[in-house]
Amino acid sequence: MKKQGEILVVGLGSGSEDSLTQEARQAIEESDVIIGYKTYTALIANLTAGKKVISSGMRKEVDRCHQALDLAEAGCKVALVSSGDPGIYGMAGIMLEVAQKRNRHIPIRVVPGVTAASIAAAVLGAPLMHDFAVISLSDLLTPWEKIRLRLELCAQADLIICLYNPRSHGRTQQLTKAWQILSKYKKPETPVGIVKNAGRSDQKADLTDLGSMLSVDTDMSSVIIIGNESTYIAHGKMITPRGYVL
Amino acid sequence: MKKQGEILVVGLGSGSEDSLTQEARQAIEESDVIIGYKTYTALIANLTAGKKVISSGMRKEVDRCHQALDLAEAGCKVALVSSGDPGIYGMAGIMLEVAQKRNRHIPIRVVPGVTAASIAAAVLGAPLMHDFAVISLSDLLTPWEKIRLRLELCAQADLIICLYNPRSHGRTQQLTKAWQILSKYKKPETPVGIVKNAGRSDQKADLTDLGSMLSVDTDMSSVIIIGNESTYIAHGKMITPRGYVL
Ligand SMILES: C[S@@+](CC[C@H](N)C(=O)[O-])C[C@H]1O[C@@H](n2cnc3c(N)ncnc32)[C@H](O)[C@@H]1O
Ligand SMILES: C[S@@+](CC[C@H](N)C(=O)[O-])C[C@H]1O[C@@H](n2cnc3c(N)ncnc32)[C@H](O)[C@@H]1O
Repeated sequence: MKKQGEILVVGLGSGSEDSLTQEARQAIEESDVIIGYKTYTALIANLTAGKKVISSGMRKEVDRCHQALDLAEAGCKVALVSSGDPGIYGMAGIMLEVAQKRNRHIPIRVVPGVTAASIAAAVLGAPLMHDFAVISLSDLLTPWEKIRLRLELCAQADLIICLYNPRSHGRTQQLTKAWQILSKYKKPETPVGIVKNAGRSDQKADLTDLGSMLSVDTDMSSVIIIGNESTYIAHGKMITPRGYVL
Repeated sequence: MKKQGEILVVGLGSGSEDSLTQEARQAIEESDVIIGYKTYTALIANLTAGKKVISSGMRKEVDRCHQALDLAEAGCKVALVSSGDPGIYGMAGIMLEVAQKRNRHIPIRVVPGVTAASIAAAVLGAPLMHDFAVISLSDLLTPWEKIRLRLELCAQADLIICLYNPRSHGRTQQLTKAWQILSKYKKPETPVGIVKNAGRSDQKADLTDLGSMLSVDTDMSSVIIIGNESTYIAHGKMITPRGYVL
């Protein structure tokens, strides 16, 4: 009888071994094939020596899912790797959708990971101690009007806001537009933390405020955390109080 | 010379070893003393054999931080453990605040973990693939009026909503009130996933919809994920499409 294949959609956290959960490490070690975006398969090269590794570039997300499904149907155990948590703007949803569209009943398991917001927050201090929103500024798949409305309402709700995909080579205006919207409701003194390559060897963290945030160098490897009305910076840490009496 | 103490605020993920990052495990193994809520220190008892473990009950968060600081000042390496990610309604912020209030300059490092929303999402499928808000229904430290406004605006923004602290023995009305607010803007057919003890041996997951969610048994160990207008349930998985052409 043919071996039954399986797909594990595995969250890598920052991509450093430190940040891998035991379950994620095991999933990679037990898999026959590793599929992922080339930057991420490179980050875990230590763990995949001797395994078949299929790397591809940006915008190849759907192709990677089809490859994973084909290989799992051929009996392989496939680890489809994703940065951070695969369930947050990662590969988990696309993989499940592709399998359903092709009407395939291969077992698919999502192995969660530490998302960029949590990694960045730990570097900055504790900015996410109260209610927050996670919003992607990428309008490749989402109409800007929808993103705009979300920014408007979350700023009015005094939520802490984590911006994913703030900027890329081709998309440079969204961050400025988002900043204009947030600035209508949040004061210029509102603390802002920006972490690039959080948890990686080339990590860079900046503490600033809403008024000045556009002058910090930000790219597609950055996550931006904008505080609520109680967030403060002291002794180099960005903290949102929860409200405890100390 | 006296050994320099240190505090590590460590995220345990679900509390099962599977869910620990390598860095979190190392932090626990290298520490002299482990401090935590009794349910969590019990979950990691395997890792702490032979160490000094200080467990305490609910509402003792601030006391635990003072203990951690006293022990670190006496030269200990202290792991203050927190479920999920310590930076999300966890111990990270309180620990930094207590140290600043007492004007102590002990090194404090936050070790991030996988938060309940990510663990629950992986169990349910991939409900968090688009913009989302994380809101705690606990009004012990936050005025209900603020929580109410956030629910109103996030529902209007068509965000996926993750509810933490949905209910406890003493707090049973907040979830009903939240449901009434969300029901003004989200359709009764909106998919809802509820996961209790996500990632633990006694995990229980339910898929339902907004119209019926109040009839699912929910407690302080549950997290609730309410979809956006595109979220659907198929083949037992809750999925929010990101918008890719498959
Ligand atoms: C397609 S999303 C993937 C998110 C990922 N699944 C997660 O949960 O972190 C890519 C965006 O995530 C953020 N990101 C992912 N890893 C990061 C890291 N190590 N440091 C900073 N930002 C990161 C950036 O905003 C980036 O543009
Ligand atoms: C004080 S908050 C701590 C959150 C934690 N720091 C995190 O990041 O997951 C407690 C709430 O988190 C949620 N929670 C924490 N661990 C959970 C788990 N394993 N399963 C379901 N919900 C959980 C529940 O909503 C619970 O009421």
